[in-house]
Amino acid sequence: MQRWIVDFKDGSRDMRVLLGGKGANIAEMTRVLGPERVPAGFTITTEACVAYLRDGRFPDGLMDQVRDAMGRLEALAGKRFGDAADPLLVSVRSGARESMPGMMDTVLNLGLNDETIEGLAAKTANERFAWDSYRRFVQMFGNVVRGVPGERFEDEIARVKRERGVTLDTELDVDALRELTRTFQGFYDFPQEPGVQLEQAIRAVFDSWMGERAVAYRRIHHIPDDWGTAVNVQQMVFGNKGETSGSGVAFSRDEVTGAPEPSGDFLPNAQGEDVVSGVRNTRDIAELREWLPDVHAQLMEILRTLEAHYKDMQDCEFTVEEGRLYMLQTRNAKRPAQAAIRFAVDAVEEGLLSKAEAIATIDAAKLDALLHPTFDPTADYAVLARGVAASPGAAKGAIVFTAADAVARAQAGEDVILVRPFTEADDVAGFHAAKGVLTSEGGKASHAALVARGMGVPAVTGASDVEIDLQARTARVGDVVLREGDRIALDGTTGAITTDDVPLVEPTVDERFETVLGWCDELRRLGVRANADTPEDAARARELGAEGIGLCRTEHMFLGDRQPLMADMILAEDEAERRERLSRLLPLQQADFEGLFAAMEGRPVTIRLLDPPLHEFLPHPQDLPAGSPERARVEALQEANPMLGTRGVRLGILHPEIYEMQVRAICRAAKAVSPAPHLEIMIPLVAYEHELELMSELVERVAGEEGLQRGRDYSLGTMIELPRACFLADHISPHADFFSFGTNDLTQTGIGFSRDDIEGRILDRYLDTGILDRSPFETLDFPGVGQMVRMGAWLGRQGNPQLKLGICGEHGGDPDSIDFVHHSGIDYVSCSPFRVPIARVAAAQAAVRAAAAQDG
Amino acid sequence: MQRWIVDFKDGSRDMRVLLGGKGANIAEMTRVLGPERVPAGFTITTEACVAYLRDGRFPDGLMDQVRDAMGRLEALAGKRFGDAADPLLVSVRSGARESMPGMMDTVLNLGLNDETIEGLAAKTANERFAWDSYRRFVQMFGNVVRGVPGERFEDEIARVKRERGVTLDTELDVDALRELTRTFQGFYDFPQEPGVQLEQAIRAVFDSWMGERAVAYRRIHHIPDDWGTAVNVQQMVFGNKGETSGSGVAFSRDEVTGAPEPSGDFLPNAQGEDVVSGVRNTRDIAELREWLPDVHAQLMEILRTLEAHYKDMQDCEFTVEEGRLYMLQTRNAKRPAQAAIRFAVDAVEEGLLSKAEAIATIDAAKLDALLHPTFDPTADYAVLARGVAASPGAAKGAIVFTAADAVARAQAGEDVILVRPFTEADDVAGFHAAKGVLTSEGGKASHAALVARGMGVPAVTGASDVEIDLQARTARVGDVVLREGDRIALDGTTGAITTDDVPLVEPTVDERFETVLGWCDELRRLGVRANADTPEDAARARELGAEGIGLCRTEHMFLGDRQPLMADMILAEDEAERRERLSRLLPLQQADFEGLFAAMEGRPVTIRLLDPPLHEFLPHPQDLPAGSPERARVEALQEANPMLGTRGVRLGILHPEIYEMQVRAICRAAKAVSPAPHLEIMIPLVAYEHELELMSELVERVAGEEGLQRGRDYSLGTMIELPRACFLADHISPHADFFSFGTNDLTQTGIGFSRDDIEGRILDRYLDTGILDRSPFETLDFPGVGQMVRMGAWLGRQGNPQLKLGICGEHGGDPDSIDFVHHSGIDYVSCSPFRVPIARVAAAQAAVRAAAAQDG
Repeated sequence: MQRWIVDFKDGSRDMRVLLGGKGANIAEMTRVLGPERVPAGFTITTEACVAYLRDGRFPDGLMDQVRDAMGRLEALAGKRFGDAADPLLVSVRSGARESMPGMMDTVLNLGLNDETIEGLAAKTANERFAWDSYRRFVQMFGNVVRGVPGERFEDEIARVKRERGVTLDTELDVDALRELTRTFQGFYDFPQEPGVQLEQAIRAVFDSWMGERAVAYRRIHHIPDDWGTAVNVQQMVFGNKGETSGSGVAFSRDEVTGAPEPSGDFLPNAQGEDVVSGVRNTRDIAELREWLPDVHAQLMEILRTLEAHYKDMQDCEFTVEEGRLYMLQTRNAKRPAQAAIRFAVDAVEEGLLSKAEAIATIDAAKLDALLHPTFDPTADYAVLARGVAASPGAAKGAIVFTAADAVARAQAGEDVILVRPFTEADDVAGFHAAKGVLTSEGGKASHAALVARGMGVPAVTGASDVEIDLQARTARVGDVVLREGDRIALDGTTGAITTDDVPLVEPTVDERFETVLGWCDELRRLGVRANADTPEDAARARELGAEGIGLCRTEHMFLGDRQPLMADMILAEDEAERRERLSRLLPLQQADFEGLFAAMEGRPVTIRLLDPPLHEFLPHPQDLPAGSPERARVEALQEANPMLGTRGVRLGILHPEIYEMQVRAICRAAKAVSPAPHLEIMIPLVAYEHELELMSELVERVAGEEGLQRGRDYSLGTMIELPRACFLADHISPHADFFSFGTNDLTQTGIGFSRDDIEGRILDRYLDTGILDRSPFETLDFPGVGQMVRMGAWLGRQGNPQLKLGICGEHGGDPDSIDFVHHSGIDYVSCSPFRVPIARVAAAQAAVRAAAAQDG
Repeated sequence: MQRWIVDFKDGSRDMRVLLGGKGANIAEMTRVLGPERVPAGFTITTEACVAYLRDGRFPDGLMDQVRDAMGRLEALAGKRFGDAADPLLVSVRSGARESMPGMMDTVLNLGLNDETIEGLAAKTANERFAWDSYRRFVQMFGNVVRGVPGERFEDEIARVKRERGVTLDTELDVDALRELTRTFQGFYDFPQEPGVQLEQAIRAVFDSWMGERAVAYRRIHHIPDDWGTAVNVQQMVFGNKGETSGSGVAFSRDEVTGAPEPSGDFLPNAQGEDVVSGVRNTRDIAELREWLPDVHAQLMEILRTLEAHYKDMQDCEFTVEEGRLYMLQTRNAKRPAQAAIRFAVDAVEEGLLSKAEAIATIDAAKLDALLHPTFDPTADYAVLARGVAASPGAAKGAIVFTAADAVARAQAGEDVILVRPFTEADDVAGFHAAKGVLTSEGGKASHAALVARGMGVPAVTGASDVEIDLQARTARVGDVVLREGDRIALDGTTGAITTDDVPLVEPTVDERFETVLGWCDELRRLGVRANADTPEDAARARELGAEGIGLCRTEHMFLGDRQPLMADMILAEDEAERRERLSRLLPLQQADFEGLFAAMEGRPVTIRLLDPPLHEFLPHPQDLPAGSPERARVEALQEANPMLGTRGVRLGILHPEIYEMQVRAICRAAKAVSPAPHLEIMIPLVAYEHELELMSELVERVAGEEGLQRGRDYSLGTMIELPRACFLADHISPHADFFSFGTNDLTQTGIGFSRDDIEGRILDRYLDTGILDRSPFETLDFPGVGQMVRMGAWLGRQGNPQLKLGICGEHGGDPDSIDFVHHSGIDYVSCSPFRVPIARVAAAQAAVRAAAAQDG
């Protein structure tokens, strides 16, 4: 018979998968603090939940084991479950592998019924406490286990208080509580038998794993559906037993700032739920010192003990029953980025943690918040609409509806927000000019989101309540009509939009953060570069610690005021005309590259030659006169699937003169700047070795004409962004000095997912149905696309042991992906400048974890 | 020092890679027929050519080795090279690993100069012969080695003939020939030194490997650029030495029908070039018996000997010099499909070959021709003219007079017939584009006939009643004047030409072909199914031997008169409306499936659920009123990259009601038809195992409601057409009964090639630059996409050892791809009905080759 139950005294924190976080931590506390500090009990394992959900019934033997465990608990407590004279009462709580606060069900005071209530009242000589407990239990059981809406109970309490002329729950006397309890029992068939109560409560907790709230929470936090929850059955202690009783929550350090003083809240004469629910105003933990100085001292000591034991900031729940302190739960404290940084630095100074251990306590993904302005958290404002939090940071400005307007108004010194249904390559100049971007369509992987994140421009996308009329130049939300020039504010960290003039708080990379980043740089093996296209991007990237540019996209050098020249070039009648027009682009691009190289001061700069399909530089055919030859030529360049069409190296092979111009501009810029950059020229979208051979010949020839020599003055490599290239990497690599995996496009081709088309309907449905637990554009699809990267990396080195390997997709700034990349033989990641600090931390964490795994 | 030369006596047919086909076969003939039948000489290896092309100069030691070899040849011949009294003359011919007829250069009579001509004249006592030879040599050398345009020589000959009042070349006397030779020498600086002539000729042959014609030919025939050509230097024998001399081409069997009588053409008093060029009308080989009965008997004996030795039909070149027969070349005869089939059947009956050997002699790709239409034998039509039945099959189309026009009109979607007096290498692109070829000159061995048969294009040659005026762009037959664009029909199996719109009949598989296909079915391991969507397709597929339907695409069932219903369904306001509209499609689709199942009589039928993006069923947005809500909804369904968008299983997950309707229609049809089909339901475009799980649940539920049970009544599988699916095949396969590799889409995603966008500009450029040697949509990209298939197949069986594996891309009908598939653990291929016989033969050949490789 499988063992479905583990007593608290037999568990430990290492058993989190089986016992859930709460169960494992209660067991650990029992070991560390001694059984007198932690009420006894047992955990029903997550395996029991998984079996229940799979089969639709309790697994064989479960309830027998529960009864045995209850017997052991009775023996420890010296009370019996259902004993009319002195009943054992228990709490029944959920507890998943990862904390899902408030998402699943809890039942307290279980074991009370019309008989045991009398025993409890007599034994505690506190009739009011007993009836308050019974009332709470019947209410909670009805709501949680039987699904009776909470308002029905609350309405009844309000009615009784009205009738009795009292305002506080605590003012209700025994009579009132008894009346409420009876009324509540009438709302459903309340089971009097404690064993039945327990069985139903366990089932309710299991079921709550598949509850709507819990499923939604798991989607957001990328928690798999198949983990299941454990159930913790624990002897009740009572914080509502009078004036020397109470419940509270305590942090071993300040949970907002990370300052080394413990913080927290408590409520006298209350159960834990009252503290968390926010119904009553709590008191600061410091007041506990005056009220119950011994308990306060014990609690402070326990917090120190637990923090030292767990080597992380702790978040505890406690109950004081008639002056005696019980610890009900502890866990590593979730905390904002600034607190995480402060704790890490202090903990190292205090000798509590090594640098590696301290870095491991930081949630790298959250550091984003430290790098962008935010709405002042103390400000009051009315949310007009919400969209997808697509690019972090907050911004305010005047509404503009076109990129050209954004540029014009920004040049006039105005802060603007670019508002579009969606954005395209043409709009990129507008991103540069705008303080923020708002779109009504598209999600986190839309063009707007990607470009905005790359540039560090705050953006809210897919705000579907905002109806944008580009003709009328209005944005309508319900009755509110916003016009060009109207002021708006948006927070890309939360997705909120408001017309209120909410104050912004500027970010700072403070000294502590710098300290942590310095440690990360010592510990990490992966290099960290930035994707940067302009001198401004490059300067920002360096400030944030990038060691070089891993991807400079050159397409913006063909846009803006160069677009007409580019369009003329593409539509040129013959090669001579095309070359003439390209020659006019050359000095402009040379100047662009000079700016970039100067900003990087001799560090590596990887420049990708032109990648996007040519029609992106042309007007839309429908904007040209019908039947005109120009329209016909533009239409001839339209493609059914541009993602899989004439782009990347295919452009270079069809129109070598474009790449020649670019290489010439790069070489001349490199010669003009001192110190010369560590130059890396990158050919995009290679599938066949001979493509790279041909382009190598072209680059070497043109660079040679400019006096630059491969190996000495520059290196030459390719983006690996097609599955075929991963399979043939050992054939391609002999022609390359480096590979940079373009994981965005590799995801598109490897999974057959067009980012533009998948975002929204399909991706949402895939998350809802559990096909995906997160977007593959956010975190690398490890078993699919990730394995393609590993194959490409390994084969690449087979063909060329000196090959340098990088990753330059969006995944280069995603901590989970960075961990994977660390184990894939990659030398560096490259991400948008604002994610460079995150990548530095994540790379260090990956190294620390890898070392720990090796030691373990 | 590397050995760059192999004497004929030292070589063999196994040395084809080093010596080229011609060199290896001359060596082999020297061994088999004895040195007295084959003029002596030596071969400069392909390695020398490769080194020359790589370094731009002759490899070290080459010319020293040539001089040594010439010394050996002089010793054998008893003559010296450049001897004024009795000069040794040689031919210098190209010869690649695979025959590239007429694509590279040849120089005859090399060694003649102003001194040796006198010796030759005196020694042969035939001054006219000597000067004719010298004239030919100076002309050929100028044209081939020095690039003097051929017309300059031809114009001069015409002028001299006019002046002398003669019409035939053979009527030119010694004076005239001497005058022509002198004039020709004035066209360029003719080298008098034989050693210099030889060196320049070798260089010219090497260079011709990279000539435009040769490169174009290699593209079409998928011959790699890096093979290089060998050069054969051979003692001249002279077919132009008078009335007991001649040259000819002989086949060991009829080269058009395969009938067991030798066939061929010859010309008395001529060199080989005259026969092949089609300039003079040749005589049938049968006439040789009357003219030179001994030579005829020797030739017949030799043909039998060579055929038995090579175990294949032979195509030989011979020269008779003053009554003595020399064999200059032999090779396996290229032949039309019907001849190949007939030879295979006869050779087995004669005991010459085993069935496996016989099947190996067939070029499976050419069998297409047998499956080509012919003129309806019962049709009444007026024969306009008759020519040589040069390449089987019938064709109709608009007349074009140049290859360029053929290409242009074909690209515009028109069927065209290429009409030329005769054809040259430059015209080859036109053969590809044309449905048929008609020439007024030349016979069965003319360039036009050879090339057309090679490509499986119907052709009538030597239709001498047709007067073609290329200037005026007319073809005149008596009073009938045909102009460009006029429609014509020709039957290359009978030689008939007509302007009537004669009906073509679909091909039937004759008894011999059936015999061969029967042997193939015994020998092959791979199953062969057809891709068929309608009962008509299905019936044709069965007729042609398909064992089942490997892919039934269901999208046509939503088109035609159902499209409005489908469009309404897609644009339905809610699910109820959508289901109502689907319910009206159900009986229509059920009837479609019933027809299909009835046609297949219980054989396997794989039905793919709806795959294409929904907007394919909707009107174009620009056809709807601007600003209308309908247009907005249609526009919302447009996708940036539909190939990577909402299609395949993604449709089924977004709109399960569509798949439910399809499954219901399939199940009801299966129940209504007897015998019930062996039903296989296929889910397209799966990337994630959970997609297939969800769709399996749907199919099993709906089928269950209709009383069908998985395993018993149907199986369920998926198309593997995304790289991710290949990587995760072991996770997907536990949910599948079968995989069918959709290699078209796997090619698109694996290489990042949108077929619609790549074909044309990009593909042409890629072939031109040698990045590709053929389209990956024609023959599977073995090292890339092919490896994905192998990975998917292997992992798929790891996850489910019972998994059945098929391939249903167009590659399923391509012989080279079938060979690859044979080695990839696949159970069956599925291709278009007309390619089923080809697939049966190719599958058998793959099995035979595999067995041979194992034995070897």
